Amino acid sequence: MIIAVDAMGGDLAPKEPIEGALLANRALGVDIALVGEPSALQTELARHGPTPSGIEIVAAAEWIGMDEVPVQAVRQKKQASINVAMHAMKQGDVSAVVSAGNTGAVMASALLNLGRVKGVERPAIGAMAPYTEKGILVLDVGANADCKPSYLEQFAYMGAVYMETVFGIREPRVGLLNIGEEETKGNELSQEVYARLKRSRLNFVGNVEPDRVHFGPVDVLVSDGFTGNVAVKVTEGVADFIFDELRSAISSSLRYKVAALLLKPALLAMRGKMDYGEYGGAPLLGVDGVVIVAHGKADAQAVKNAVALAQRAANSGMLDAMRGALQSPGTKNGEAGTVETSPSLDETRV
Amino acid sequence: MIIAVDAMGGDLAPKEPIEGALLANRALGVDIALVGEPSALQTELARHGPTPSGIEIVAAAEWIGMDEVPVQAVRQKKQASINVAMHAMKQGDVSAVVSAGNTGAVMASALLNLGRVKGVERPAIGAMAPYTEKGILVLDVGANADCKPSYLEQFAYMGAVYMETVFGIREPRVGLLNIGEEETKGNELSQEVYARLKRSRLNFVGNVEPDRVHFGPVDVLVSDGFTGNVAVKVTEGVADFIFDELRSAISSSLRYKVAALLLKPALLAMRGKMDYGEYGGAPLLGVDGVVIVAHGKADAQAVKNAVALAQRAANSGMLDAMRGALQSPGTKNGEAGTVETSPSLDETRV
Repeated sequence: MIIAVDAMGGDLAPKEPIEGALLANRALGVDIALVGEPSALQTELARHGPTPSGIEIVAAAEWIGMDEVPVQAVRQKKQASINVAMHAMKQGDVSAVVSAGNTGAVMASALLNLGRVKGVERPAIGAMAPYTEKGILVLDVGANADCKPSYLEQFAYMGAVYMETVFGIREPRVGLLNIGEEETKGNELSQEVYARLKRSRLNFVGNVEPDRVHFGPVDVLVSDGFTGNVAVKVTEGVADFIFDELRSAISSSLRYKVAALLLKPALLAMRGKMDYGEYGGAPLLGVDGVVIVAHGKADAQAVKNAVALAQRAANSGMLDAMRGALQSPGTKNGEAGTVETSPSLDETRV
Repeated sequence: MIIAVDAMGGDLAPKEPIEGALLANRALGVDIALVGEPSALQTELARHGPTPSGIEIVAAAEWIGMDEVPVQAVRQKKQASINVAMHAMKQGDVSAVVSAGNTGAVMASALLNLGRVKGVERPAIGAMAPYTEKGILVLDVGANADCKPSYLEQFAYMGAVYMETVFGIREPRVGLLNIGEEETKGNELSQEVYARLKRSRLNFVGNVEPDRVHFGPVDVLVSDGFTGNVAVKVTEGVADFIFDELRSAISSSLRYKVAALLLKPALLAMRGKMDYGEYGGAPLLGVDGVVIVAHGKADAQAVKNAVALAQRAANSGMLDAMRGALQSPGTKNGEAGTVETSPSLDETRV
């Protein structure tokens, strides 16, 4: 299996993606296509000694910066590393793409080069909230700020297929992020989505209130991209705030410093549990390929984790299962599923 | 000054509201009208010895339970304690109302008995997020799940007036809770609200990303009620999760127990900073009166804090300032403000 790594993507490119690719090649026995500007890649690779046979350079003359306007950049820079990587997947030359680059550009490039799985109106970005042993997939966490009910119903199917095939969770419990438990709670969107999920074939367990998410009552948590992004970012912000406060409290006295030394292993373990990056990457679901988005600040270890996730997803049959589930999601009574519409790339906010 | 306390409202009524009223009367020198079923109130009051002269019972034959349907219950139970309290404020007999009861019922009763401040389409519930020294007012946190841009613009004025008059913050910094910093980020609602706030007379400082909220870059944070509720509840959930994890880690070994003892003061201080209840209550803004909603589980101390906040708000001239600011919010260039519409009580989701 070959996995394409966008060597030009991310704040720390090409250094960390390349080092991460080398780590992944060594640890996971997976071949890597490093996509990027050849001379920059060769210079960086040379720093690590002889390049292993499982690492190949795929030339891309351009790249897209973190601040560029996604759709425009993807369209104008045909030879951007992310476009070349996606094209390689479309051709079947690689089994998955990993990028720590501009998320909007990854999404736009996937849409342009791979297209959507049939039955999917809008792809979504899923984030693994690693609270419980197996984690919770929250989606969408930012690809779609304005959503129709049908999008969220499709997110639910996409998330369930992902958790079932990639993580082996049978009949994943699907919940809807909402501001009350009862069916009638929430905004118009969530009330309509509730009704749809209730009559779907999914293992829908109802609304999940935002203060319960971290106690893991579900495997898949569905949300519009605006609210999902807020939930993920508030989680990060609160965790940062608490650990910042703890750090400054600790440094204020010797007594606290001693206590902190004693508590250190427990604190580190806890910090890990709050880390959305722990799982290595966020799957881009609903595009017709396996795409893992790593954090823009991903270091070599995080890139390696993202490659491991990509490998796992590519091996899992996730994409075929997704094609089957979304084409005719249907209902409990066997009625026909949602009808596909075909938005242009411009309509998709990335 | 007399403040009405809904003695029948909340999970711990009438015990805790009554004890809180007594505490407030003693500590704050404020007179209290305890509204509720007289015999229940007298029995409870008798447990505390002779009733001080500043405590008066106002009879209300009915009350509204925490699980009742708000608008319906408020309409049917004319003599419910919350209706009697609001009516007393309308008559000018009391200066503010404090209730730990069913939030939807408090909102509905305020709308029915007091009405809205002119220029306000929808009242909002504000929550003080006590991260910084003076706190941040987040609004709306749940009264309005579906919002129009004009609502959020009004929330911004309401919040600014509240922070300026009640907390003495001059030209409060107003931010918009959004999933990106730039003007073009977010959903349709947030983009429209951004444009409105930018041309308003407010000290608008732009979008605030959800992971920055806890580091306090603003005094007022505006949001639709769905997203605001999610942000507040995720904050509570993450804090609970972290402190739960810490507790269970600590109890797992003697070493950690020793460390925890040493760290205890710092941990307690931190927990306090994360507590949305610390400020004693959430103001109901946009109704034509001073109304403070305490937590449903408010104990005597929390009820006392809510009375203190109500006293402060009633003394601050907040309501007059609100009437002035909302009647013609206007723009930086002196254009006319938003036009008032008149929704019925049924249209207002409570």
